[in-house]
Amino acid sequence: MKLIGRIPFLNWFFFFSALPLLTRPASPQLITFPKQELIDYTAQNPFDRLPDRRPKVPEAMIERARDLSSEEVWEVLEEKGYNNQYADGFQVLHAGKTMVGRAFTVQFMPVREDVNKVAQAKAKQSIGKRLFNQTAIDMLQPGDVLVVDLFGKKVGGTIVGDNLFFFVNQATKGGGLVVDGSVRDLDGISEIDMPAYFRSVDPTPIGNVMLTGINIPIRIGNVTVMPGDLVVGDREGVYFVPPQFVQEVLDRADETHIHDEWTKKKFAEGKYKSTEIYGSPSEPKLKQEYEEYLKKRLDEIHKQRNGK
Amino acid sequence: MKLIGRIPFLNWFFFFSALPLLTRPASPQLITFPKQELIDYTAQNPFDRLPDRRPKVPEAMIERARDLSSEEVWEVLEEKGYNNQYADGFQVLHAGKTMVGRAFTVQFMPVREDVNKVAQAKAKQSIGKRLFNQTAIDMLQPGDVLVVDLFGKKVGGTIVGDNLFFFVNQATKGGGLVVDGSVRDLDGISEIDMPAYFRSVDPTPIGNVMLTGINIPIRIGNVTVMPGDLVVGDREGVYFVPPQFVQEVLDRADETHIHDEWTKKKFAEGKYKSTEIYGSPSEPKLKQEYEEYLKKRLDEIHKQRNGK
Amino acid sequence: MKLIGRIPFLNWFFFFSALPLLTRPASPQLITFPKQELIDYTAQNPFDRLPDRRPKVPEAMIERARDLSSEEVWEVLEEKGYNNQYADGFQVLHAGKTMVGRAFTVQFMPVREDVNKVAQAKAKQSIGKRLFNQTAIDMLQPGDVLVVDLFGKKVGGTIVGDNLFFFVNQATKGGGLVVDGSVRDLDGISEIDMPAYFRSVDPTPIGNVMLTGINIPIRIGNVTVMPGDLVVGDREGVYFVPPQFVQEVLDRADETHIHDEWTKKKFAEGKYKSTEIYGSPSEPKLKQEYEEYLKKRLDEIHKQRNGK
Amino acid sequence: MKLIGRIPFLNWFFFFSALPLLTRPASPQLITFPKQELIDYTAQNPFDRLPDRRPKVPEAMIERARDLSSEEVWEVLEEKGYNNQYADGFQVLHAGKTMVGRAFTVQFMPVREDVNKVAQAKAKQSIGKRLFNQTAIDMLQPGDVLVVDLFGKKVGGTIVGDNLFFFVNQATKGGGLVVDGSVRDLDGISEIDMPAYFRSVDPTPIGNVMLTGINIPIRIGNVTVMPGDLVVGDREGVYFVPPQFVQEVLDRADETHIHDEWTKKKFAEGKYKSTEIYGSPSEPKLKQEYEEYLKKRLDEIHKQRNGK
Amino acid sequence: MKLIGRIPFLNWFFFFSALPLLTRPASPQLITFPKQELIDYTAQNPFDRLPDRRPKVPEAMIERARDLSSEEVWEVLEEKGYNNQYADGFQVLHAGKTMVGRAFTVQFMPVREDVNKVAQAKAKQSIGKRLFNQTAIDMLQPGDVLVVDLFGKKVGGTIVGDNLFFFVNQATKGGGLVVDGSVRDLDGISEIDMPAYFRSVDPTPIGNVMLTGINIPIRIGNVTVMPGDLVVGDREGVYFVPPQFVQEVLDRADETHIHDEWTKKKFAEGKYKSTEIYGSPSEPKLKQEYEEYLKKRLDEIHKQRNGK
Amino acid sequence: MKLIGRIPFLNWFFFFSALPLLTRPASPQLITFPKQELIDYTAQNPFDRLPDRRPKVPEAMIERARDLSSEEVWEVLEEKGYNNQYADGFQVLHAGKTMVGRAFTVQFMPVREDVNKVAQAKAKQSIGKRLFNQTAIDMLQPGDVLVVDLFGKKVGGTIVGDNLFFFVNQATKGGGLVVDGSVRDLDGISEIDMPAYFRSVDPTPIGNVMLTGINIPIRIGNVTVMPGDLVVGDREGVYFVPPQFVQEVLDRADETHIHDEWTKKKFAEGKYKSTEIYGSPSEPKLKQEYEEYLKKRLDEIHKQRNGK
Repeated sequence: MKLIGRIPFLNWFFFFSALPLLTRPASPQLITFPKQELIDYTAQNPFDRLPDRRPKVPEAMIERARDLSSEEVWEVLEEKGYNNQYADGFQVLHAGKTMVGRAFTVQFMPVREDVNKVAQAKAKQSIGKRLFNQTAIDMLQPGDVLVVDLFGKKVGGTIVGDNLFFFVNQATKGGGLVVDGSVRDLDGISEIDMPAYFRSVDPTPIGNVMLTGINIPIRIGNVTVMPGDLVVGDREGVYFVPPQFVQEVLDRADETHIHDEWTKKKFAEGKYKSTEIYGSPSEPKLKQEYEEYLKKRLDEIHKQRNGK
Repeated sequence: MKLIGRIPFLNWFFFFSALPLLTRPASPQLITFPKQELIDYTAQNPFDRLPDRRPKVPEAMIERARDLSSEEVWEVLEEKGYNNQYADGFQVLHAGKTMVGRAFTVQFMPVREDVNKVAQAKAKQSIGKRLFNQTAIDMLQPGDVLVVDLFGKKVGGTIVGDNLFFFVNQATKGGGLVVDGSVRDLDGISEIDMPAYFRSVDPTPIGNVMLTGINIPIRIGNVTVMPGDLVVGDREGVYFVPPQFVQEVLDRADETHIHDEWTKKKFAEGKYKSTEIYGSPSEPKLKQEYEEYLKKRLDEIHKQRNGK
Repeated sequence: MKLIGRIPFLNWFFFFSALPLLTRPASPQLITFPKQELIDYTAQNPFDRLPDRRPKVPEAMIERARDLSSEEVWEVLEEKGYNNQYADGFQVLHAGKTMVGRAFTVQFMPVREDVNKVAQAKAKQSIGKRLFNQTAIDMLQPGDVLVVDLFGKKVGGTIVGDNLFFFVNQATKGGGLVVDGSVRDLDGISEIDMPAYFRSVDPTPIGNVMLTGINIPIRIGNVTVMPGDLVVGDREGVYFVPPQFVQEVLDRADETHIHDEWTKKKFAEGKYKSTEIYGSPSEPKLKQEYEEYLKKRLDEIHKQRNGK
Repeated sequence: MKLIGRIPFLNWFFFFSALPLLTRPASPQLITFPKQELIDYTAQNPFDRLPDRRPKVPEAMIERARDLSSEEVWEVLEEKGYNNQYADGFQVLHAGKTMVGRAFTVQFMPVREDVNKVAQAKAKQSIGKRLFNQTAIDMLQPGDVLVVDLFGKKVGGTIVGDNLFFFVNQATKGGGLVVDGSVRDLDGISEIDMPAYFRSVDPTPIGNVMLTGINIPIRIGNVTVMPGDLVVGDREGVYFVPPQFVQEVLDRADETHIHDEWTKKKFAEGKYKSTEIYGSPSEPKLKQEYEEYLKKRLDEIHKQRNGK
Repeated sequence: MKLIGRIPFLNWFFFFSALPLLTRPASPQLITFPKQELIDYTAQNPFDRLPDRRPKVPEAMIERARDLSSEEVWEVLEEKGYNNQYADGFQVLHAGKTMVGRAFTVQFMPVREDVNKVAQAKAKQSIGKRLFNQTAIDMLQPGDVLVVDLFGKKVGGTIVGDNLFFFVNQATKGGGLVVDGSVRDLDGISEIDMPAYFRSVDPTPIGNVMLTGINIPIRIGNVTVMPGDLVVGDREGVYFVPPQFVQEVLDRADETHIHDEWTKKKFAEGKYKSTEIYGSPSEPKLKQEYEEYLKKRLDEIHKQRNGK
Repeated sequence: MKLIGRIPFLNWFFFFSALPLLTRPASPQLITFPKQELIDYTAQNPFDRLPDRRPKVPEAMIERARDLSSEEVWEVLEEKGYNNQYADGFQVLHAGKTMVGRAFTVQFMPVREDVNKVAQAKAKQSIGKRLFNQTAIDMLQPGDVLVVDLFGKKVGGTIVGDNLFFFVNQATKGGGLVVDGSVRDLDGISEIDMPAYFRSVDPTPIGNVMLTGINIPIRIGNVTVMPGDLVVGDREGVYFVPPQFVQEVLDRADETHIHDEWTKKKFAEGKYKSTEIYGSPSEPKLKQEYEEYLKKRLDEIHKQRNGK
């Protein structure tokens, strides 16, 4: 998509003359979430923080998380009573390629010029330029997943086309995209090897909206997403894991992988009914066999992981 | 609905012990919109402000607005380029009864306990009690319309039942309710003469959500609603009118009423084709007749209004 | 709705300069259906024709048809093998008020300026003015039902507001409206006592469409509607009855009314199982009783009808 | 609807010649639920049973239940852990008229002739006639609500028209109808004062289905309905209350009515915030006032009820 | 998915103490379909029966059926008047891989504890353990397709995850799965080469339901599925073929394959209009050519098949 | 699909005896669009015409258009004010394979026998045979895309199965198919390398419809399609480009391809923010670099194209 020499965001245009005098340091967005608030509301974060104060799930954990499935995340979060962390109903760009990264959140709302004029004037004051989708995209870090609330908008709800999708891929090192909205240039996007989850596709560029927040709490489907959540996407949908649960999710997943390995091995022998093996072996002897297998494999995994 | 002696909002329960020390004056909601921001972003408001700083569309205009229809609001806003101020798709409680009032906005998001615990602790510090739907309801003023973003939630998205609906009616002097969510106790609510617009009805009480903002900008359908907008609801849907356009909407509506009066009178004579009369009389003589009628009736209306 | 001094149909605007020279008598619509075609394709019509060549179901039959229900029409058409004459899924303006009249059909399609320019130029040549919704509305006759294909369009798919609805009511003598599209000014429309069936309601005026045919075959839901069909609408939906079946539908409905009268009378006695009475009495004696009742009541109806 | 002399259920037609010899006492339906099973599976029923072994919620309780709302039923069932007893999404025939009665359940499935032939032959043997919707309707008792699984079918899913609806009203003494399917003759039905809940309306008669069970467990929406459940329908939807909870639901509703009475009275005084009164008075003095009021009013109600 | 040491089916928990004394041999499900009934209702079955009395379409026919398409099944069933044997609207796991096998049916309904307690007690008595999804899965035979009515349930409607899907594949020798409900572990399931048709995918395990029948007649979409039906699934949807029609379907498909082979060969020559060749050659000479081709190819196929 | 010896279109059957005498040269379709009308309404066509008078976008342009994406078409049409030329919501047969060709339009409507009888009699008179889907298919030319209005019909809305799809592919030289309706034989169709866009798939053959127009203006989604429009389909949807804009669309796309090439090259260097490069370079030096690159690459493309 080329847009040289034309202004696709006509509705973002504004006259400064009608603006009130802004007498305080202006914040560049309608909805703000100061850094201290971010720290307060993610106080259970056990990790370091990024310069923008988002929790920083460590790189090594992000790598381990590439083997996670939705079910493994569900298992731990359900125990903790976190039942609102999963969103689905997306078109999945590359089925079979797991998405993992730290949530970088962006919110749009339907434009109304009285509000947008003020926001743009404040942006001019504070960051020296207008606010639009690329404002957020320019802030992305390696390991981020761009998570965007465009309230399900299709026409004019296209957060990126293939050029910006290419840029997001570069900037996040293949992190990913989740948008409760649409994308454009699907043919071009399909050739780029970054995971993406979107509601729909449309040929129009983004428009008739205003950027209202960056790294604020946003809602995607039935999830309140916090900046810095670990985003895990598979063929089914997307989980947003609060940082304080990441370690446990990963450790429990190790056990589950071994459990599934053993269960399928047993089933493949063809000697057992499903109830004799799964969810837990019914006979004491089988149970013992499983537990020894689990222990051995866990040891192997830990050695292999430490050996890396 | 009676809830004596039981706690329906179990998910709001929290332990203070795990909370971070809050070293700053806490704001009682996840999403805040300071009074100065509210003033900045509604700078075009030509009227006084309420104590909470919302624009205060005058009472007399609210009364005049009871004769407005969606089309009359559309006419002015479309000219101004405000195409995102209308929401529909609601169940309308009392068809034929126009709703008019000042927007009092409330936002909920899906609960997550790590965030909610902090919000409730901050609420405890700043307002001395927990945050929930009644926190907002207790703040309503006469002339308000309660406008609630419950993200279309049906089960557990019931902002009020008949008792609280009764209270809202008392507090707002019959203002009204718009909820992108549900209500309960519909039989009881139907007996109370306040306009209401809701997506669905459910027997469950509100739950699995957290109150995240009061009098902040919220989204209802394709509208960014600002606190203090004039809310106008008819049989079709709901318009949110920025205060700076209220006067013009009302004055133009006077002309439209007269125009329609005259047009129907002419049609009733049975002598004309529709194109000869509507939208504007085609013959000079008819046009003149209309203009004289318009002038006369406008004078009458103004006299009558001033005479009140 | 008032539209004085402004042009709501901006997209209908056109420059004649770019037009091809039209060397033949121009027809004023994209899709034409010459009068001879109309006669050929409704050759089974047993009645007179209107000046525009539509079949003219007689006024007396229209009056009798006010007692019809969807089921009574279904019964005859199903026997004839006409299974595609019923459309539902409408909002019904006045539940309980039966709509009956002769179909006056109108078709719109999405506007494209290259086509519309030519159509408007042809209209200018042949009828001296532009084509738009009022062009059709001005042609309505007493006893007509205006049937409009606006392909389910909501925004900009509003065939009439309250002024034109008022005019349609005048022109058709309360005939009615069926639109696979929307209306506006619902509050105003609700006060006018003409039946109407529409898909949705919107505050915008009609726009982004072009009028492509008047009194041509159109599709409403799963029905191919022919100009002059008898339109019968009840609480459930709308039947389009080919003129050749109107007499039989009415005569059979007389019997059905008597059958239902008798059946309910019998049920009210409380002595019979439903299977003993309905659909047809199982006992010979009851059957005879019914047949005598039927004969007597038919005689009464015929006398009463002739006596009028 | 009249069907004299014609056979609307052509698909029910069958040839006996191809049938297997039936060597056992045949049960007349595809899915059977013997009387002992019905007794076993409703073992918690505290009341008498009807001759067909369904639990018989007493007439007096049915009368008291006419004041219930969905919320009052929800309150008790939620406490008991019964979260699957509510169905909604129906068209409600007479809004504002509560439906109460004992569930009489009927199940249909899509017809397949190999199965239907056998079922009809068995019916011929055991009950002497074919199975169809009237078979069930003839078995209705006063106080019953007819609850029908027609799997959401619209065309051909019409359990009754106005004649049979009239009969059901007679037979059940105004009990009611819930159908996960459709009805026909809506104009006629609307004139009969019995509550009804249906998914849609269609002019076709029932067809392309076979009756597969009477007074068996069926599914309506997300509810497993048992024969004899107390059915309670209001403006919102329908609750199916297991008989063992009816007494408690009714007693708790008495308290709720008084609670709401008092709460609204207090709100009407205009002196209190909503949180001071509702769900439970916050001040000890108010609490005491409420408790005295509750006690007094309960006494009055009990006296009045006993006095009847 | 690992579930060791936890009980995911909490809602299946029950206390025996409250149970009625069961004085008869208990049947282990709410809905029963005795073996004799199964035989009676599938009396037209021309084949042997499995030990559980389901019709046993022979293995050789199952193999031949792997070349069937939906259209070829439609052709025969439509002639027989069986219009309710096709279901679609599924997610298809492995597009392009035909599913063929004998229907093994399972039914779930929404749980209600009063009923479930009794069912589980009866199960304890008769089969010595509780009833749940694995009860049915353990009974699968080679050549079966597991067909499950979970009434479209998504959350908690997951009949299997990857472990049980692996087991079903083992037990049925790659038969297949049709569920009017969901699956979980889609990433894992995708790696297993068994056909599957499901409505949706969810990370939750099965829950809030009770198993109510095994090898009973069930409804999937608009089909009444009988145990032992031949299930044929392609890219479009799933056909359930009564055993008595299998032979004819297969033989007619042979002719259709040859017909299509010849038709496309002729089209590829580029000399003919479509109407000259298809559905049946219009010229006598072409017709003769086709008939000779058909005969020759049928002979070849029969020889090849017999030679196997 | 084989249909030898049977008549699948029973509803097309008709008796000539009841027909009116047709005294004029009969047109073979209900809706006609004479050649002169086609020429008038596509007067802006800058190219030659096909023998049937449709605009003939040159073969070379069709080839160049194979590199177009929806966004590139959108860009030019939006500037021209043509906002109704795009349709989506289709199932796309071969994702990643662009469809390009000249629109050959066909319209069906729900059958009604009174109308169909006349149409078939007229067809008999004028073309010597009955009208049905193959009538249109036999008229296809190389480079055509078959565009069919079957009003979203699924059951009986199957314009082709694999045999006719094979023929369409032969006749159009791989042009393509767009149907607002369905196809059958999806397994067979999937093996044929022609692009296709359809709403759904069904095993039934086409039926319960009548062919009402060939190469007339039709509506597909929100597009008025004119015969001869350039049809461009990608992964997202289908654009119908009026011939007068084809040249500009192609030329602008060249620039866009180069722009995207350069933008991604710059992004890949990792030195720039997205706003520095895209939509247009912000620094003068970068801008100059881009403009030189654009000029150089355009020259290369033009040389390469001319050199072909």
